[in-house]
Amino acid sequence: MDKKKIPYKIYLEENEMPAKWYNVRADMKNKPAPLLNPATLKPMTFDELRQVFCDELVQQELDDTTPYFDIPQEIQDFYKMYRPSPLVRAYCLEKELDTPAKIYYKFEGNNTSGSHKLNSAIAQAYYAKKQGLKGVTTETGAGQWGTALSMACSYFKLDCKVFMVKVSYEQKPFRREVMRTYGASVTPSPSETTEVGRRILAAHPGTSGSLGCAISEAVETAMSMDGYRYVLGSVLTQVLLHQSIIGLETKAALDKYDIHPDIIIGCAGGGSNLGGLISPFMGEKLRGEADYRIIAVEPASCPSLTRGRYAYDFCDTGMVCPLAKMYTLGSNFIPSANHAGGLRYHGMSSVVSQLYDDKLLEAISVEQTSVFAAAEQFARVEGILPAPESSHAIRAAIDEALKCKETGEEKTIVFGLTGTGYFDMTAYEKYNNGEMSDYIPTDEELAKEFAKLPKVEA
Amino acid sequence: MDKKKIPYKIYLEENEMPAKWYNVRADMKNKPAPLLNPATLKPMTFDELRQVFCDELVQQELDDTTPYFDIPQEIQDFYKMYRPSPLVRAYCLEKELDTPAKIYYKFEGNNTSGSHKLNSAIAQAYYAKKQGLKGVTTETGAGQWGTALSMACSYFKLDCKVFMVKVSYEQKPFRREVMRTYGASVTPSPSETTEVGRRILAAHPGTSGSLGCAISEAVETAMSMDGYRYVLGSVLTQVLLHQSIIGLETKAALDKYDIHPDIIIGCAGGGSNLGGLISPFMGEKLRGEADYRIIAVEPASCPSLTRGRYAYDFCDTGMVCPLAKMYTLGSNFIPSANHAGGLRYHGMSSVVSQLYDDKLLEAISVEQTSVFAAAEQFARVEGILPAPESSHAIRAAIDEALKCKETGEEKTIVFGLTGTGYFDMTAYEKYNNGEMSDYIPTDEELAKEFAKLPKVEA
Repeated sequence: MDKKKIPYKIYLEENEMPAKWYNVRADMKNKPAPLLNPATLKPMTFDELRQVFCDELVQQELDDTTPYFDIPQEIQDFYKMYRPSPLVRAYCLEKELDTPAKIYYKFEGNNTSGSHKLNSAIAQAYYAKKQGLKGVTTETGAGQWGTALSMACSYFKLDCKVFMVKVSYEQKPFRREVMRTYGASVTPSPSETTEVGRRILAAHPGTSGSLGCAISEAVETAMSMDGYRYVLGSVLTQVLLHQSIIGLETKAALDKYDIHPDIIIGCAGGGSNLGGLISPFMGEKLRGEADYRIIAVEPASCPSLTRGRYAYDFCDTGMVCPLAKMYTLGSNFIPSANHAGGLRYHGMSSVVSQLYDDKLLEAISVEQTSVFAAAEQFARVEGILPAPESSHAIRAAIDEALKCKETGEEKTIVFGLTGTGYFDMTAYEKYNNGEMSDYIPTDEELAKEFAKLPKVEA
Repeated sequence: MDKKKIPYKIYLEENEMPAKWYNVRADMKNKPAPLLNPATLKPMTFDELRQVFCDELVQQELDDTTPYFDIPQEIQDFYKMYRPSPLVRAYCLEKELDTPAKIYYKFEGNNTSGSHKLNSAIAQAYYAKKQGLKGVTTETGAGQWGTALSMACSYFKLDCKVFMVKVSYEQKPFRREVMRTYGASVTPSPSETTEVGRRILAAHPGTSGSLGCAISEAVETAMSMDGYRYVLGSVLTQVLLHQSIIGLETKAALDKYDIHPDIIIGCAGGGSNLGGLISPFMGEKLRGEADYRIIAVEPASCPSLTRGRYAYDFCDTGMVCPLAKMYTLGSNFIPSANHAGGLRYHGMSSVVSQLYDDKLLEAISVEQTSVFAAAEQFARVEGILPAPESSHAIRAAIDEALKCKETGEEKTIVFGLTGTGYFDMTAYEKYNNGEMSDYIPTDEELAKEFAKLPKVEA
């Protein structure tokens, strides 16, 4: 093959596809801090975690030394339904920006779930099936994760119980119906079906719910039913392991054409996409084999990395989950009502948090009107309507490309385009009508939340 | 390459991509009847048609002898953004049905417009740009065509004015917002902005609009504005020419692996997808080189082929368009209110109509609850949430595969999966809730419409 001719889209051949996931923790000198049992403040053991999660997933969660895990053949077979995802050269965007920068994006939206979440959903469903379970429970906010999981469970004929944040359940009925079409049961959270749900409803009548609350309900349901476990779509290190497929494919596609990226950009909510995309590049950086600028982009309205505290915190509102050390805004933090997209979790993956604390990646925050402006500009020339979450990375990529225009540098920029915005048209409508606003939490608001962080010596 | 190993998805290489569209009329012994001027009842001339359509598109419309048209390089370049579309072996569906049949589907939903409509939208936008026009006008019902056209116009920086059937404009705001995000202006039809719109509003105050009415408004607007032309997403023979890319890719992919299909199935509304998908196969059939069963699938609630009259009829409600000879339910026919998806045009492409009249293809009609049952079954195993329109083809493909199960025949079935159902979740919700109903128009209802057909000796 002529190494010089770079196609519009780079697809890997079947025999070039990664057959192993990469566990970046194996190369980290400073390992992410362990999950703690909130009762004893001791690290969670395998036996404790397997009450909540599937056995093999717990092994993956706890293993910070094995660099590669074989991707089971059944999961590789499923990946064939929508992978490899294309690495696209954004020729049209480059032309529109009139920049000397070369821009590539890894597009994860070409599957019915519409996002990268499917990469981990199918893995978690597979291990649940392999363990002989009847089903799984989970939470979902805007619905990307719930959609992906219901699709994966349908494939393996597993029962799927989704607790959907009530405000989304009511205001985003389409995602709910996608999940139901795949056979999942969807319950608005908080609900009367769990103890923690009833407790929250009693304390906050009429509440519209939160991700942290839905997590608590899903965990309680899994633990109280025979043959069920809880699964989570982000934050956990097992999820980042599965999502490493994004980065591994990206790296293989770049290597195929001898392309060396200067900057790698991902949006960051819980960290699943970012952690997956950057993992092999970060591995090289950790091993001293190569250097890259790596940028996490988060919403200014939910700035866990850029303005959060690096501390042990609860993962959920009901405090039924282990404590995790992470950059956090406090487990009761909820983004302002005008916040449109996802990326609204109060904390950040412990892996990403540790890498950030070690200054191995940068973080920036962007305001949502500028994010939608970037989304629109991208859509009009690249022909893909991006999810609001993904558009945070687009914003940062455009800004870096415009800096190159000023300096004349021909930098190579790679960003993760995690999904499509088909189910986010209400937010686009607000933007189209000029009715979208920004909000940046004040220092005082954040300080109030920080004061409630649990007192744990890390 | 090992000819025997058939991958899960067959993608063509860049150098295997078709560089010409195929004009099936060139091989038809009985040519489709010409468009007639409603005032003179004489065939529309080039000069008459170019008042409405772009010059090169009129040439394509009128040319029934040239078998191949070069695809301009600019259009080939745009096609690279989302083509080749995959030809997928439905291994999971075959397993689910436990059928010896081999099922393939050509998936056209992998682009932001979500359907095959983009294939012709980009061509029509290109010719408009080439002619130096300022913009184009069109109508849209559910919104697939309007979405595709607004995306294509955005790419070529053309103005795009869409008249959207009022009921869809109000009830399907998300498609409208996609179009606006791509920079199109979207007007609910009937509107006060056109003479025909004002006339219809005066005659039917409070009407929720129809496709035929929106066509009239779009045509009037194009003809009254300097530098504008009208474009149409289906029915016309030029559209079928552009859509031949679907069939040509399908045939190239099958040939690459020595696969001979027995049955080819497409859903049929105006005929654009069906006509495009079947064209090269029909060509072989017309030239006596091969034989195939070709099946058009239409909704029982809008059965133009299976129950319509083959006659000259108006293409629009306002009667500003030429007359076309086609299988038609009458230009005032509107499907019953419970009809959920597209495929609601009263007539059928004159090419498809003539082929059907010559018994070169079969037609069947299916009821929508059975269509959604097929959609759900397909989604759960194949991981794609299909558009209601596409699901008509799925229904027929499943039924043929189940017949093979009974007879033990290993037939090869190919069907067109024209798009995704992301914007049709209201219909899915109805189905999920058991609230979807069927409706078959009575003979009396159809007879009333037939009585209004214009009296034209063909």
